[in-house]
Amino acid sequence: MARLNFQDWMAIESPKVEKALDESLAFVPLPCRAIAAHILKAGGKRLRPLLVVAFARALDYDRDDVYPLATSLEMLHAATLLHDDILDRAGSRRGQPAAHTLFGEAKTILTGDALLAAGNSVTASYDSPSLCDCYARATALTAAGEILEMDSLGNPEQTRDTYMEIAMNKTAALIANACVMGATLAGASPAQTAAAERYGENVGLAFQIVDDALDFAPQSQTGKPCGGDLREGKLTPPIRLFRDSLDPGSRDRFDASFRTGNFDPEYFSGLIKEIGRFVPAALAIAKDRVRLALDALSGLPDADEKQILKQIADYVVARCK
Amino acid sequence: MARLNFQDWMAIESPKVEKALDESLAFVPLPCRAIAAHILKAGGKRLRPLLVVAFARALDYDRDDVYPLATSLEMLHAATLLHDDILDRAGSRRGQPAAHTLFGEAKTILTGDALLAAGNSVTASYDSPSLCDCYARATALTAAGEILEMDSLGNPEQTRDTYMEIAMNKTAALIANACVMGATLAGASPAQTAAAERYGENVGLAFQIVDDALDFAPQSQTGKPCGGDLREGKLTPPIRLFRDSLDPGSRDRFDASFRTGNFDPEYFSGLIKEIGRFVPAALAIAKDRVRLALDALSGLPDADEKQILKQIADYVVARCK
Repeated sequence: MARLNFQDWMAIESPKVEKALDESLAFVPLPCRAIAAHILKAGGKRLRPLLVVAFARALDYDRDDVYPLATSLEMLHAATLLHDDILDRAGSRRGQPAAHTLFGEAKTILTGDALLAAGNSVTASYDSPSLCDCYARATALTAAGEILEMDSLGNPEQTRDTYMEIAMNKTAALIANACVMGATLAGASPAQTAAAERYGENVGLAFQIVDDALDFAPQSQTGKPCGGDLREGKLTPPIRLFRDSLDPGSRDRFDASFRTGNFDPEYFSGLIKEIGRFVPAALAIAKDRVRLALDALSGLPDADEKQILKQIADYVVARCK
Repeated sequence: MARLNFQDWMAIESPKVEKALDESLAFVPLPCRAIAAHILKAGGKRLRPLLVVAFARALDYDRDDVYPLATSLEMLHAATLLHDDILDRAGSRRGQPAAHTLFGEAKTILTGDALLAAGNSVTASYDSPSLCDCYARATALTAAGEILEMDSLGNPEQTRDTYMEIAMNKTAALIANACVMGATLAGASPAQTAAAERYGENVGLAFQIVDDALDFAPQSQTGKPCGGDLREGKLTPPIRLFRDSLDPGSRDRFDASFRTGNFDPEYFSGLIKEIGRFVPAALAIAKDRVRLALDALSGLPDADEKQILKQIADYVVARCK
């Protein structure tokens, strides 16, 4: 069989994931379905379900019940987005009005809960408590990561380790559990499951680091205003690397603004430019993580989808929005 | 063995449930634990965990792992309370400041999500996908019931059936699933599981109807202001029965106020008194439900805990707050 490339694979798998997502709406109770459909059908990269599929296939699992399982984590992800847009008072999401601005906060919070439950129902239909456990752990760690992040906001002395702990919880845990769920469905050995987890954690960390670097790319490229993390007091890698480069006087000035979120407009635009110079160094950290992710794949059988997993990892650092 | 009464049984079982609840906090990630402890340790009737225990024991299940399982539904219940107090902008809960007033909305929403996941982790540890499924269904239906209720607020023509559908989802589904989880753990036959569900649904409906009747009891008795449901536009049984008794002119006046929630203060206090006259008729509906619950028990073996289940059902209509 000729080697698949990522685009060809996506052209085959994406429609199957989308169809399964449509069908998974049946697990959402009727009164919550309109809001659930609003967030689920607004698009997205579908990274988590695609990783479930790729990992199961890489371990030679050929049944179609991988698709419903894959949607469970997209429902979890959608639930967290519904709740996050309320927490962040965000007005839009993926170019659409955020759900809470259309349906109200109360119903949006409840639909988030119902989506968490619907994803849970899907995993529970697989007769495998360890799949349920993956799902539950991913949910809990994502929430914990967001709280950790809130507790660190505006702290210019946050360490690199704390940043990594936040990213591991709020982003990488869910992506790692996607890989582990695919592997578990395929009946992976303990070593293969550990490899799936290590690949997913490192892809997830790389994903978050790239996301944070893209905060300093122009809005014309990403669709998001530049420097949002700086204003919100998130000490992401480019900001930390920039701060580390400052002399004590400049650092004091930076810290005072960073703690309060009050930046003189001219100072702010100067900072954006200067921090932008540290984006390549931040991306180098992400690339190191991708290397670790690829290492983790070395023990897996030499399937087509192993190549896809490599290309997904490369895509995570190559993406520009 | 001498027959246990409810008080003696509670004196034995309550401390075991409380101890298991303390231990279950370990399933909540550290950054969420303070908020989770705040809501879990504020007390409560522990009706749902006690039903898990009573049903498992009534079917002759004697192992101690019933207690952690029982706590899963209290965590689910606590999660819904955290979210509800945000939806309702409630300032207090069980005589304590509501969590969101102490910890902020954002962390409280996230801790609700983490508690949903923690309960899910607990059920997933039992190697029984049907327990996970009970848990997921209870979560989804509770949220769906709350959305249904919101859609009916201020509608004076809401039918009795709609009221029952709301109560079945938002309250009875969780209580029924507590009974089903206890039965499932005990290896119940399909007929016994169906009996557990029917008992739980009817106890749950009775519980909600009594709750709604208590809305017209004096604050000195319940600790809550009288007539809150009337002001919020919930057409509960005493309100519906009162409205059904009105002549067309009085009904029009009532409907106009009920739709908007704007009541002239004097009219409001008059209504409270008049609606209070329909509380006994509402309680009669609850008693019918308790009878159905007791009927459902008839096929179960004649264990001590069957007597306890009967007394729990009786307590649900006899309670005064």
